[in-house]
Amino acid sequence: MPGSTEVADVTDPERPARRTGGRSARVQDQVEGAALAVLLDAGYSGLTIRAVAQAAGVAETTVYRRWPTVGDLAAAALLRLAARGNPIPDTGSLVEDLRLLLTQVTELLARPEVLRVVRSAVVAEGDAARHARNAFFQQRFAASSVIVERAIARGELPPDTDGLRLIESLVGPAYMRALFGYREIDDDFVESSIASVLATVR
Amino acid sequence: MPGSTEVADVTDPERPARRTGGRSARVQDQVEGAALAVLLDAGYSGLTIRAVAQAAGVAETTVYRRWPTVGDLAAAALLRLAARGNPIPDTGSLVEDLRLLLTQVTELLARPEVLRVVRSAVVAEGDAARHARNAFFQQRFAASSVIVERAIARGELPPDTDGLRLIESLVGPAYMRALFGYREIDDDFVESSIASVLATVR
Repeated sequence: MPGSTEVADVTDPERPARRTGGRSARVQDQVEGAALAVLLDAGYSGLTIRAVAQAAGVAETTVYRRWPTVGDLAAAALLRLAARGNPIPDTGSLVEDLRLLLTQVTELLARPEVLRVVRSAVVAEGDAARHARNAFFQQRFAASSVIVERAIARGELPPDTDGLRLIESLVGPAYMRALFGYREIDDDFVESSIASVLATVR
Repeated sequence: MPGSTEVADVTDPERPARRTGGRSARVQDQVEGAALAVLLDAGYSGLTIRAVAQAAGVAETTVYRRWPTVGDLAAAALLRLAARGNPIPDTGSLVEDLRLLLTQVTELLARPEVLRVVRSAVVAEGDAARHARNAFFQQRFAASSVIVERAIARGELPPDTDGLRLIESLVGPAYMRALFGYREIDDDFVESSIASVLATVR
């Protein structure tokens, strides 16, 4: 019978997380929020399971069970950072969406604690951390590429426009300047970046 | 008398470095080469004055006198990396110059030891290290911008083209992909990057 496996799982005594329902979701929310807070406050080098457990007000074993490595915690924190307070713009206009998106990115990169997290993500070693970094940026780019898909649907862009390519061209120089400091992100930056990127697709 | 200060300095007994001439240049060459070798081999965390002195075959005091901090050594090493074996292309054609430059960059970023140095540069803290990082990228961008200046002189680009802007649009996605791993640098990457960038200026 279709779906019977899932039904059986919900009542399976071997899966306590599913049975505790609301509490499990609450714990996940607390721990991921704490991981992000620790990362913003202390950087990657300060991100430990102990620190996250303390900040979340849960036992260390609770954290270990679900996020067995620091890389797993970093992944959860980065993905939460990607989502939090940064909805992908949907104004109905490509130019306006790109303007809002790049303004979001430059404002985030101008915050020292966010830049510290991005710098930490760049050097984090090990499989879990690498996975977290790649997942964070893949998620960010995939979400942002929706702007391009909507513009294609409205006829504002050619159907074969590569969304990720367009978004990385838009935000790449902002990340480069923030990370490498060879030139300031000045007042004109957002507008001239948008003009550059739109020239490549029209 | 114009120039008299410089003449006096050369014979000033308080400035032995100027008097020893050839030996001083040799020591500088050895120490900077050793600093780069240590950085490529062990990353920023392995870059110490002791390790560099040993690799260069000179006394630690010799290193301290001229490069008082690890940041000074990192600066010298990064600038040497920027110059070494990576001459700025000068083929007489903008497209060909950009193709060679971006191929250089992607080949460098594909080498794990070079990527380790770039990652280290991103997180290096403190004034000297920050200075080294900024100087490295400013030097790289200034040198690469000569490609744009030559193209303007040949009439291939409008006179008001911003050289640094064009170069960062060209190499930015390569750095982003190498640092953040959200998409591979594939075979088509160099050509599609050049096409994108040229669309913005023509």
